[in-house]
Amino acid sequence: MPMTARIERAIARALALSQGGSAPAKLASALPYATQPGGARIRPTILLSVAASCGDDRPALADAAAAALELIHCASLVHDDLPCFDDADLRRGKPSVHRAYSEPLAVLTGDSLIILAFDVLARATVDHPDRGAQLLLALSRRTGMPGGICAGQGWESEAEIDLGAYHRSKTAALFIAATEMGAIAAGHAPEEWLDLGALIGEAFQVADDLRDALLDEESLGKPVGQDDLHGRPNAVCEMGIGGAVDHLSKILAAAIASIPSCPGEAMLAQMVSHQADKIMPAVPARYRA
Amino acid sequence: MPMTARIERAIARALALSQGGSAPAKLASALPYATQPGGARIRPTILLSVAASCGDDRPALADAAAAALELIHCASLVHDDLPCFDDADLRRGKPSVHRAYSEPLAVLTGDSLIILAFDVLARATVDHPDRGAQLLLALSRRTGMPGGICAGQGWESEAEIDLGAYHRSKTAALFIAATEMGAIAAGHAPEEWLDLGALIGEAFQVADDLRDALLDEESLGKPVGQDDLHGRPNAVCEMGIGGAVDHLSKILAAAIASIPSCPGEAMLAQMVSHQADKIMPAVPARYRA
Repeated sequence: MPMTARIERAIARALALSQGGSAPAKLASALPYATQPGGARIRPTILLSVAASCGDDRPALADAAAAALELIHCASLVHDDLPCFDDADLRRGKPSVHRAYSEPLAVLTGDSLIILAFDVLARATVDHPDRGAQLLLALSRRTGMPGGICAGQGWESEAEIDLGAYHRSKTAALFIAATEMGAIAAGHAPEEWLDLGALIGEAFQVADDLRDALLDEESLGKPVGQDDLHGRPNAVCEMGIGGAVDHLSKILAAAIASIPSCPGEAMLAQMVSHQADKIMPAVPARYRA
Repeated sequence: MPMTARIERAIARALALSQGGSAPAKLASALPYATQPGGARIRPTILLSVAASCGDDRPALADAAAAALELIHCASLVHDDLPCFDDADLRRGKPSVHRAYSEPLAVLTGDSLIILAFDVLARATVDHPDRGAQLLLALSRRTGMPGGICAGQGWESEAEIDLGAYHRSKTAALFIAATEMGAIAAGHAPEEWLDLGALIGEAFQVADDLRDALLDEESLGKPVGQDDLHGRPNAVCEMGIGGAVDHLSKILAAAIASIPSCPGEAMLAQMVSHQADKIMPAVPARYRA
């Protein structure tokens, strides 16, 4: 089965767990609204690619991990879009959850998706106790406090931002979760996969900063210049468009170099290059070295 | 060690996991602010009481379960207090988290506490895989969709409310989690403990409705009549103060009758009576049968 089909099937199966006879209808429909159709599904794609490179001997466990990670990512988007954060009207080209439903339902949608992510992993833990517990710990570590995406978002409420900690937690954390969880699901040690996740996360952050600076609202599906608008740190502000493009290329080369020796090493290098092509915005020639 | 000391120690140990060198300071301090000092800690007290009645042969696991459950309860209070829900200025006699910190930090505090709850259980699962996985599943089921407290809060966004499903999920769910998780932590089957949790939850809901109708803001620590104000269903509105008092006594008798045969049966009956005394508001004599 192609990877994209595996990911969508895993997410659909997870969402089915949240539906039921006695569920309130609006919240029940907001959960699939917030998760389907998805964006690039880049985090679960990386997770399954790493699992494949490590032999993928427990594909059902890898699927559960991929779904859980994407549910957490979607939850973070729903909460980040709230009026008290980005106040975004649009997400993936359609109204954000609080615009389509309401602010209370958007808060509850995020909460429910977080809980669903852990529920999916807990179910998988029944059959695979050792790997399941490790997957749960990797996900909670990269999601909550003190170093997960909640911490990353929390940095934006500080008067002085620790830039390293901010980027590591705000964007890189879920990419690190992707590589770690892919390895764990296939029975490999997560430690040696950390660098790959961190470097892909850094590349993604720089690419996002470039996109914000370059693209218009229509092609992006969300208002442009949001980050700059809210005074958050931005690679383009720090090093200019040309500098950011150059930096991005170097990060991607380092990411490929960091891939541990494994049967799927070449396949994984190709996946990283492919993802890089997808995230790299169209940069006018005058900015390229 | 007295039960209250066990509970506070378990919560303090859980919170310590959320603190660290690279954490953003405000969010890091909001987590203890939202959880310490606590309220009556009634849910973890019930959980540890049921565990004790079942032999409490894995006290560290019961402690982790008690902390996780209380963290979820505190998270729900932080999110319920948000401007888009109850817009409450006060909680437990001090400013609510969004008043003391900010709305973004209150959203993140709730998210972080939810994740921390699952993290605490995931850590306990490493040493106790079978019971740990069961505890995780019980907590996610009673917290998320379709039947946990998120669903209960979601019902308030529906034009027509299924009263049975609303009360079961909004209030009873975490009391059911308390009895189920207490049994699981001590190696017993959770099913036969469900009724006790459901009945305590129902009693708590009726007592809360009575308190809302009777007490003033000073002694309660939150604005009075909040539920009535927002047009939510209320036992006192349905059956009057006298009827609600009578109903509450019957529920508590049923709760005590539902306790499964176990070594700690008498102790547990005493605990329920004690909790009942604590939750029963001072009702003027004219309302009593």
